[in-house]
Amino acid sequence: MTVAQNATHLVRARPGGTMEIDERVAELDREPVGHRFKGMPWDAAGLTVGELTAQRRDLFGGGFGTPVLVLSEEALDHNLELLERFTADHGLSFAPHGKTSMAPQLFARQLAHGAWGITVAVPHQIRVCREFGVRRIFLANELVDAAALRWIGEQLDGDPSFELTTYVDSVRGVELMDAALRAAGVRRPLDVVVELGGGEGARTGVRTEKEGTAVAEAVAAAGTLRLVGVAGYEGEVPAASPETVRAWLRRLVALASGLDAAGLLADAEEIVVSAGGSAWFDAVAEELADLPEFSRPVRKLLRSGAYVTHDEDHYSKVTPFNRIPDEGALEPAFRLWTQVVSRPEPEQAFLNAGKRDAPYDLGLPQVAVIRSARTGELRAPAHGVRVARLSDQHTWLTLPHDEPLEVGDWVGLAVSHPCTTFDKWQLIPATRGTEVTAYIRTFF
Amino acid sequence: MTVAQNATHLVRARPGGTMEIDERVAELDREPVGHRFKGMPWDAAGLTVGELTAQRRDLFGGGFGTPVLVLSEEALDHNLELLERFTADHGLSFAPHGKTSMAPQLFARQLAHGAWGITVAVPHQIRVCREFGVRRIFLANELVDAAALRWIGEQLDGDPSFELTTYVDSVRGVELMDAALRAAGVRRPLDVVVELGGGEGARTGVRTEKEGTAVAEAVAAAGTLRLVGVAGYEGEVPAASPETVRAWLRRLVALASGLDAAGLLADAEEIVVSAGGSAWFDAVAEELADLPEFSRPVRKLLRSGAYVTHDEDHYSKVTPFNRIPDEGALEPAFRLWTQVVSRPEPEQAFLNAGKRDAPYDLGLPQVAVIRSARTGELRAPAHGVRVARLSDQHTWLTLPHDEPLEVGDWVGLAVSHPCTTFDKWQLIPATRGTEVTAYIRTFF
Repeated sequence: MTVAQNATHLVRARPGGTMEIDERVAELDREPVGHRFKGMPWDAAGLTVGELTAQRRDLFGGGFGTPVLVLSEEALDHNLELLERFTADHGLSFAPHGKTSMAPQLFARQLAHGAWGITVAVPHQIRVCREFGVRRIFLANELVDAAALRWIGEQLDGDPSFELTTYVDSVRGVELMDAALRAAGVRRPLDVVVELGGGEGARTGVRTEKEGTAVAEAVAAAGTLRLVGVAGYEGEVPAASPETVRAWLRRLVALASGLDAAGLLADAEEIVVSAGGSAWFDAVAEELADLPEFSRPVRKLLRSGAYVTHDEDHYSKVTPFNRIPDEGALEPAFRLWTQVVSRPEPEQAFLNAGKRDAPYDLGLPQVAVIRSARTGELRAPAHGVRVARLSDQHTWLTLPHDEPLEVGDWVGLAVSHPCTTFDKWQLIPATRGTEVTAYIRTFF
Repeated sequence: MTVAQNATHLVRARPGGTMEIDERVAELDREPVGHRFKGMPWDAAGLTVGELTAQRRDLFGGGFGTPVLVLSEEALDHNLELLERFTADHGLSFAPHGKTSMAPQLFARQLAHGAWGITVAVPHQIRVCREFGVRRIFLANELVDAAALRWIGEQLDGDPSFELTTYVDSVRGVELMDAALRAAGVRRPLDVVVELGGGEGARTGVRTEKEGTAVAEAVAAAGTLRLVGVAGYEGEVPAASPETVRAWLRRLVALASGLDAAGLLADAEEIVVSAGGSAWFDAVAEELADLPEFSRPVRKLLRSGAYVTHDEDHYSKVTPFNRIPDEGALEPAFRLWTQVVSRPEPEQAFLNAGKRDAPYDLGLPQVAVIRSARTGELRAPAHGVRVARLSDQHTWLTLPHDEPLEVGDWVGLAVSHPCTTFDKWQLIPATRGTEVTAYIRTFF
């Protein structure tokens, strides 16, 4: 049994298995639809989410408002299965980055697809995970807030099944954590991993092995913390390429080896080596395939998040499956449906979605499909239709004068960057075909 | 009595006055604090918003999480009073743009400060306003969605005190509205104003007076609509300057005159002439000061939204009060408090707020103040501390190597653009001094 298989087994064999998150997520059905969620059908105000779900409304005929962000269940299923298979095939444990969606329903599906745990970026996201019964959480960041650490200590002491691992990258940070956990009287040590930065000028993380060792020694001296491994984010390696990313991954493994050889991982039951966003998991899989000998079992932990929805621009360009097409391909799951509200000049049109609705940080949305208000037919846009800019509440389109787009038509936009798409929507219809079969709730 | 005074009188003299919105807003106190709202105190999970408010916590000692966006009550009060005085002094009615904050508590304060109504940008925002009892709503956009129009028709027919005005800028749009309202069997006509675009290549709105007249004639032919005036947004005038904005405002007034002379405003009880974001309200006040004679009373309607919080970058540069300092000055109300989680190199530091927390479309945030984790003292940053970029969940700082900023310190950021600040926060502490006296709920 590989470590990855073992991890899956562990999650599923626990008392309750993934039952608890499923039950908590089911409670979301009791939320009222209404003014709190944009895009919902205008006549659904008196319904709960569960009642609306049961109606299986049609996306186009069901009275949904625009703009409305929509997820494809088929694409979600495909992507969940693909990364489950990819990680199993490569002996990787998987803690998909939950900050992408912050959607407990998707966390539940990810766990049901074999994920070892859920990764998050900031303490508030731990709280959301805990609220929905996620038992194993990996905080891919430093955590030095005393009030948050007190709360986390209470959670650790109060629930033996709760597992949390966080980053450390400075002696000062370790001292603050230790002081806060001591002041709170926390009994169970908090697991930490030393973060290795991507290189000079990169994001967080120690810059050198020497600094990493100093941080590890500070952890050893802090009674409230337990060092369990190393982690980092290869997406921030300066001038990232297959060569530079692999070189960095080898440094990460060497740091773990060095800490192990120095006895600084002696308290760990298993040693965590974690890397992997959504652009380089092929390199992560290859570089972690054959590790040097360690004193205890190694958990190779991948943390990709954007894969779950993928996209049609940034991530479609950088996905590792472009390099390893034999292992599969992700499918984009988002469509942002908008309506044309104005065509004031032959070469200009305006949609009713703006910066509040669509991501714009890694490329603007693009017109994928047009639905005629007159006929209900779907068609491709004419060549030359493009999004020129976004205002707060408008999309500016430029288009050929003879493109027949009309006021009232619906326009389906392709988006770039799942993280800044999800965070603009609190309740997202998910469809099979055009039938809305679920409503995905996010917590940002 | 001026029209503006009269408008204020009308709102306040209605049965219930602004009582209804106050009562609805008070119900927000019953919402539970907890996982749904980031930045809230870690130990407040079992409390309602009302209970937490009553505790009058200290912003720094009250256990708030970071990042946390904070509003200054003093600045809000000042700005509300300043625009109330400005609009009254200039005989303007005021429907502040609610899309800026989407905070019913702020809408209530704006109405209590004499606002005639609330402006919104998209139909969903009408629903939020209605939920909280806003009676007079100005939709500064076209509305051609049949499902939304059916709902609006039900609201109009069901509540004689509900007043809604929307834009029209195309014959096609008028036809779609009329068809939808007819199909819904709506009895009370929906008030519309012809939108005049800012110029060639500008945003929505008719480009010529001839087109405006054609749209007005289409409205006259539609039994379900009533033309009540003209509107537009001078902020989108190409190469906006005092001269080009004033020239456009004169076009707007002339369009209204022309429609009046043609008898196309004959059904209106009063004629609405509306303009004004937060950059040119001085020009709006001056150009609307002396109007030609109209067949019926004219309501000069200003719609500024960003004024309520102002900012420390974009709007601080473009505010009209820079040109008319004798009439006052707005105060910035936002401070985004973050924590240093890493200082991996002497000239680099990382804060725990990112694109999910801070606006980045009209300039990056800037470091305004530092609070030492060791002493609790506030100090200015050293010269040369600046925000270099934002990741999804991190702020990248560059700083002089001898700036003593440490991991654990809190950093207060100044932000640019209220609209893309509010929409990243659902519950925002508001302070007097450092005491949190209210929690402002937003609905995006």
